[in-house]
Amino acid sequence: VGVILEYVPTQAELAYTFGGRDPVGELKPGQVWQIFTQDCFNGAVTNVDTLPSRVCEFPFLNPVTGPFHVDGAEAGDILAVHFAAMRPARAWGVSSTFPHFGALTSTHTTATLQPVLEERVWIYGLDPDEEVVTYRARNADFTVAMPMAAMLGTVGVAPAGSEVRSTITADAHGGNMDTPELQAGVTLYLPVAVPGALLGLGDGHARQGHGEASGVAVETAMNTTLTVDVIKDAALATPRLESHTAIMSVGLARPLEDAYRIAHHDLVMWVMELTGLDILDAYQLVAQAGQASIGNVCDPNYSVVAKLPKPCLPNRDVYGGIHKGLKELAGRALAEGT
Amino acid sequence: VGVILEYVPTQAELAYTFGGRDPVGELKPGQVWQIFTQDCFNGAVTNVDTLPSRVCEFPFLNPVTGPFHVDGAEAGDILAVHFAAMRPARAWGVSSTFPHFGALTSTHTTATLQPVLEERVWIYGLDPDEEVVTYRARNADFTVAMPMAAMLGTVGVAPAGSEVRSTITADAHGGNMDTPELQAGVTLYLPVAVPGALLGLGDGHARQGHGEASGVAVETAMNTTLTVDVIKDAALATPRLESHTAIMSVGLARPLEDAYRIAHHDLVMWVMELTGLDILDAYQLVAQAGQASIGNVCDPNYSVVAKLPKPCLPNRDVYGGIHKGLKELAGRALAEGT
Amino acid sequence: VGVILEYVPTQAELAYTFGGRDPVGELKPGQVWQIFTQDCFNGAVTNVDTLPSRVCEFPFLNPVTGPFHVDGAEAGDILAVHFAAMRPARAWGVSSTFPHFGALTSTHTTATLQPVLEERVWIYGLDPDEEVVTYRARNADFTVAMPMAAMLGTVGVAPAGSEVRSTITADAHGGNMDTPELQAGVTLYLPVAVPGALLGLGDGHARQGHGEASGVAVETAMNTTLTVDVIKDAALATPRLESHTAIMSVGLARPLEDAYRIAHHDLVMWVMELTGLDILDAYQLVAQAGQASIGNVCDPNYSVVAKLPKPCLPNRDVYGGIHKGLKELAGRALAEGT
Amino acid sequence: VGVILEYVPTQAELAYTFGGRDPVGELKPGQVWQIFTQDCFNGAVTNVDTLPSRVCEFPFLNPVTGPFHVDGAEAGDILAVHFAAMRPARAWGVSSTFPHFGALTSTHTTATLQPVLEERVWIYGLDPDEEVVTYRARNADFTVAMPMAAMLGTVGVAPAGSEVRSTITADAHGGNMDTPELQAGVTLYLPVAVPGALLGLGDGHARQGHGEASGVAVETAMNTTLTVDVIKDAALATPRLESHTAIMSVGLARPLEDAYRIAHHDLVMWVMELTGLDILDAYQLVAQAGQASIGNVCDPNYSVVAKLPKPCLPNRDVYGGIHKGLKELAGRALAEGT
Repeated sequence: VGVILEYVPTQAELAYTFGGRDPVGELKPGQVWQIFTQDCFNGAVTNVDTLPSRVCEFPFLNPVTGPFHVDGAEAGDILAVHFAAMRPARAWGVSSTFPHFGALTSTHTTATLQPVLEERVWIYGLDPDEEVVTYRARNADFTVAMPMAAMLGTVGVAPAGSEVRSTITADAHGGNMDTPELQAGVTLYLPVAVPGALLGLGDGHARQGHGEASGVAVETAMNTTLTVDVIKDAALATPRLESHTAIMSVGLARPLEDAYRIAHHDLVMWVMELTGLDILDAYQLVAQAGQASIGNVCDPNYSVVAKLPKPCLPNRDVYGGIHKGLKELAGRALAEGT
Repeated sequence: VGVILEYVPTQAELAYTFGGRDPVGELKPGQVWQIFTQDCFNGAVTNVDTLPSRVCEFPFLNPVTGPFHVDGAEAGDILAVHFAAMRPARAWGVSSTFPHFGALTSTHTTATLQPVLEERVWIYGLDPDEEVVTYRARNADFTVAMPMAAMLGTVGVAPAGSEVRSTITADAHGGNMDTPELQAGVTLYLPVAVPGALLGLGDGHARQGHGEASGVAVETAMNTTLTVDVIKDAALATPRLESHTAIMSVGLARPLEDAYRIAHHDLVMWVMELTGLDILDAYQLVAQAGQASIGNVCDPNYSVVAKLPKPCLPNRDVYGGIHKGLKELAGRALAEGT
Repeated sequence: VGVILEYVPTQAELAYTFGGRDPVGELKPGQVWQIFTQDCFNGAVTNVDTLPSRVCEFPFLNPVTGPFHVDGAEAGDILAVHFAAMRPARAWGVSSTFPHFGALTSTHTTATLQPVLEERVWIYGLDPDEEVVTYRARNADFTVAMPMAAMLGTVGVAPAGSEVRSTITADAHGGNMDTPELQAGVTLYLPVAVPGALLGLGDGHARQGHGEASGVAVETAMNTTLTVDVIKDAALATPRLESHTAIMSVGLARPLEDAYRIAHHDLVMWVMELTGLDILDAYQLVAQAGQASIGNVCDPNYSVVAKLPKPCLPNRDVYGGIHKGLKELAGRALAEGT
Repeated sequence: VGVILEYVPTQAELAYTFGGRDPVGELKPGQVWQIFTQDCFNGAVTNVDTLPSRVCEFPFLNPVTGPFHVDGAEAGDILAVHFAAMRPARAWGVSSTFPHFGALTSTHTTATLQPVLEERVWIYGLDPDEEVVTYRARNADFTVAMPMAAMLGTVGVAPAGSEVRSTITADAHGGNMDTPELQAGVTLYLPVAVPGALLGLGDGHARQGHGEASGVAVETAMNTTLTVDVIKDAALATPRLESHTAIMSVGLARPLEDAYRIAHHDLVMWVMELTGLDILDAYQLVAQAGQASIGNVCDPNYSVVAKLPKPCLPNRDVYGGIHKGLKELAGRALAEGT
C-alpha cells in the first residue's frame, strides 16, 4: 500500500465501547492509514442458516477497531477525520431481521405485547469494482442489483464526563450514527474530550436504506483509508460533516423530531459563524436551502443529518480549509499507493 | 392555453377546509386543467413590513382552490391526480417566521414558557424561466441564488367519516403534506371517501428546505397543470405518489418516527402487492433500497415520504400504468397548448 | 327524577362527530339534566363471543349523545359543564383488545409488520350501589373486585374553524379525552366556537387504568346528571377542569410529552391569572406542587392532566365561583329528585 | 444511631457516574445503614443570588454517595434496596430554573432558537418534623406550605456491558429516575451487572411535582436509612419497586409514551409471573387496574412508573416476601436506634 500505513486488528483488539479502553495504536496528522473493520456481527454470520441472535452475545456486538490515540488532540479540541476511501473487504455482505430491533417492529423501548418478527438472514453479493450490491429474496426467485454506497455506521471518540458508551449508541461523541453521509470523500468533526481523542471506527455498510428500517444494513468488513488532524481549542455541540459540496450537522436523539431539531439548530449556528448573518437570517437560509437526511430510526438515538450546499456559502472557509487539505493529502497517498 | 381548461377562483371561492363545502366545479378524466392557487397568506403579504400574523386571521390561512367534483369518483375508489406542470404565478415569493410555528421554535403543542421568536418577512425573487429563487438577507448584504423546485404543499380530498379538516393539517385524505416530492411529473393517489372525491389544492412553494424548518416555505401563487383519473374499488391507507423513477408512500403523524413508520409500512405493503414477495423479503428490500425524505416538521401532522426506485421493481405495472397514461395525456395537451 | 329533566336518545339520534350535526335538544343554565349515553360499542358487544371489530363498523364507533344547543353560548365564550353524578346504566361493563388499538400494540400510526394481538372480550360485573367492578380472567379461574370509578371518556363541543371531528379524537374542543379526572363532582370548561356550543357526551367507563393501556376501558352505558352555564367572553386554549380540591388543565397531543407540556403550560398561565405571580414564580409553584395524571396513550391525541391543589391558591376565586354554584344547584336537584 | 451503621462521604468521595469507580465501602445484607447524600448542586447554592450555572461545572453535577460494594451480589442477580427512612439533612431546600433544562423550555435536545429562560433560584423552608415544605415567591408576597414528600431522585448500580453513565441519566441500571415513588417504605429492585453491584444514591428531594417540570425539584441533602439484600440468579429488564400496597415497574425512555410502554410491558410480564395469567388476561388486568405516575419529563430519559395495587394479586408472594423482611429488619433497627 505504499506510503499508506495499515492496521488490521486481532479479534482480541476489537472494542465494544467508546471510552474505557487503552489505545491500540497512534495516528499522527500527516499520516494516511488503511484500517480494517469487522462487520457488526463480528464476521460470525456467514450464511442464511446462522441466526445473529444465536451467535452474537450482548455486549459483543458492533465491534469497532481502535481506539487510536491521535497525536496532539486534547480535551477542548476538534478531531477532524477525513475518509478518503471505503472498500468492502469481502465479496459478500449480510443483513437480517433481529429480535426487537428495527423501525417496523416493536422493540425493548417501543415495547408491545406482540410476538417478535421472524429472524431471517440475507446474504448479498458485493462487487466493489462494479460498485454493485445484489439482493436475493429468500422465499422467491427475485433478484435486484443496487448501487454500492459504502459507508461506516459507527465512528466516535471517548465521551466527555468520564462516560463509557456502548458502540450501539450514538451521542455528542459520535458512535453509531448510521448515516449514509459518512462515506468516502467526507471529513467528520468530533469533539475531543480526553487526551488523544481515542478514535474508534466500524460497522461498515455496503449500502443502507434511509433510516435502516430493518435495523441491519448490508453489513460488511471494510477497509477504510483515512487521515486525521486536530483543530485546537474549538468546541462542538454535536458531530459535523463536510464534503466537497456541503456542510452537515448530525442530530442524535429521540424522538426523531429532536434529532431533526439538534441537527438544524447546529447548522443555523454554523451558518451564523461562517457568514455573520443574524440568527433569523441564518434560520431562513437553512429553512429554504437545507436538506435533511434520515440516518437511522432503529438505534438508541436516531440520527438526522442537516445539510447546506456550499453554493449557499460563497467564499466561506470552513475550519481554515482543513477538509480540502486532508483530501489532497490522502489523494496523493492513494495515488502513490496504487 | 389551447386544449387546456382553466380555472381561476374568486376570493370568495377559496376553501379553508377539506370536506364541508360544495364543489366549485367538475373535473372529468381525459381533461387537462390549469388551476390557479393563492399563496398560504392569501396574497396579503407583499412586502417585508407586512407581518403575516397581522393580516391573516385564523382560520383564513392556507386557502385551497376547490373543491372539485371528480366525475365517476365514488367512496372506495382511488383518485389519481397527475401534476404535469407547476409554475409560480408571480415574480416574487414570500417567507417568514410566524409566532409559535416552525421546527426550531416552541409551538402551541411543544409549549414552552419562552418568548416567541421575532416575526420577520423575506421577499424572494422568482425567475420561473431560469428556474432561480433568490434569497436576500434582511440584516446583511447577503444574497444567494437557489434552484427553483416548485411544488404544492396542500392537496387533498374530503376525509372519511364525515370529518371536515382544516387545510393546515394532513392525514389519510392528503391535505397539508408539505413534501417537495409533490412536484411536476408525479401522480398523487388519494382515497375517495365521498361522491366526486372533492379535490382541493393550494399552498404553492417555489422551493422549501426539507422539513420546512421555519414553518413557512418560499410561498407563491401557482399555476398548476393537472389531469385526473379514477381507479375503481381500490383502497388506500395513506397517500401515495408515483414518478417516472420511483413509487412513494406518504406517512403523516407525530412523532416524526411514526410518520416514518407509516410511510415505510405502506411501502412494504405496496412492494408485496407489486412483487408477490413475502413480508420479510419485501421489508428487507425496502430496508436496503428505500429512500426517506422529510416533508415537514412543523404542521399538525409531520410528513415523511418513503421511496423505492423503480429499478427495484422490474416489469411491474403500478395501477395498470395509469401514471404513464396521464403523463402522456397531459404532455400532449401541454405541447398543443404552447 | 323530580326536577331533573331527562334525555334518552334513540339510536338514530346518536352522533359520531363533534360539529356538523343539528342539535337534538336545548340545555338552559339553571336546569339539571340526566342524560343517557350508550357505550363505545353502541351496546353491540354483550358477551365474550362477540368481537367488537365484527359488529362495529367505522365510523359508527364511540357514539355521543347530543349535540345539545346551550342557551346563551356564543363563539368566544366558555361553556361550563358540571357533572353532578355518573351511574352505570347496566349491571355489566365490557372491555376488549381491539386490532391495532392500544398502548402495548402496534397501531396504524406506530405501524409495525407484526401480526395483531388476539381480539378478546371481557365482561365485567358492575355494582353501582356497592361501587364495585369485577374482573374475571378469560383463561383462568381468577377474579378481582376493583373500586368503581365512573367517568365519561368523551365530552366536547363543535370545533373552531368549521372543522368536524370524529368522536374518537380529542383536541381543543374536548372530545375523546379519556381521563379519569372527568368524573362526578367536577366542572369541565370548554371553548365555545359556534352558537349554542353544541355539547355532546358519551363513552362512559365504570373505571379505567391510567393511560387506557389496552385501548378499551370498562365500557358501559351511563346516566349522567349535569348542569351547564356560560362564561361570557372568555378564551380557553385547551379544556380545563375544576373539582372541590383542585384546578386542572388538559393537554391533548402526541408525543405524550407534548400533552404534558400543553397541560402544564396552560396551568402556569392559569396560576398567573389567579395569583398575579410572574411567569417564573408561577412555573416554580406548579413544578413543585403540580400533579400529572395520564389519561390515555391510545387515542389519536394522547391526554395528560396537570393539576394544582386548591390549597396552593388561597382565597382565589376561579371563574367567579361558578363551580361551587353549579355544584350546589345540581346537589339541590339531586336531593329533591330522590 | 444505635445499631444503624453510618456513612458520610467526604467531598472527594462523591461520584458523578454509575460504573467506572472503585467502591467507597461495603454493605452486607442484614446491616442497616444511614447514608448522607449531598444535594444535586453539591451544596453550592445556598441563597437566591447564587446561580447554579455559575457554581456548578459539568460534569460535577448531581453527585451520588458511593458506590458501595454489596456483599454477595454477582452479575445476573437482583439487588434489593429497602428504603426505611428519608429525612432532609437541612432546614432548607433549593430549587431553580436552569438554562436549557426542564419540560417547559427548549433544551439541548428539543433545540429551538429562542433565548433561554431567566435563571432564578428559590430557597424553601423545610420542617422535617412537621413535614412541611414552604414555597416563597421571589417577586411577590406569596407563600404556600406544601406537604413534605421526601424522595431520592437518583439510585443506581454499575451498568451492564462495561458502560459508565453520568448520574444525570437513567436506564436499566437505575440512575436519575426522579420519581416520587422512590420514597421511604419502598424496596427498589435493580439488575446486578458487576460483582458487588456498586450501588450509588443521591439527589434528595424534599418534594417534587410530577414530571419535575422546571427540571429541578426542592433539592436537599438527605439522610437515608436503608438495608440491602440479593436475589440470586434473577433477571430484570428495567427497575422495579415494591411498597406495602403495590408493585411497580419503572419505564425510562424518550419519547414519554415509550417510558409508559416499557413500564406497562414490564408490569404485564410481572403479573404473568405472579399469577400465571396468560398475556392477554394480564394485560387486561393492568389496563383496568393500573396506575401510571410520571416521574420526570426533563432528564435524558424520561420516567413513568406503572403501578398495580396488591389487592389485585391476592396471596401472591413477590420475590419470596423479601420486601416485608427488609422492612421489618430496618424497622427494628430504627426502633432501637431512637
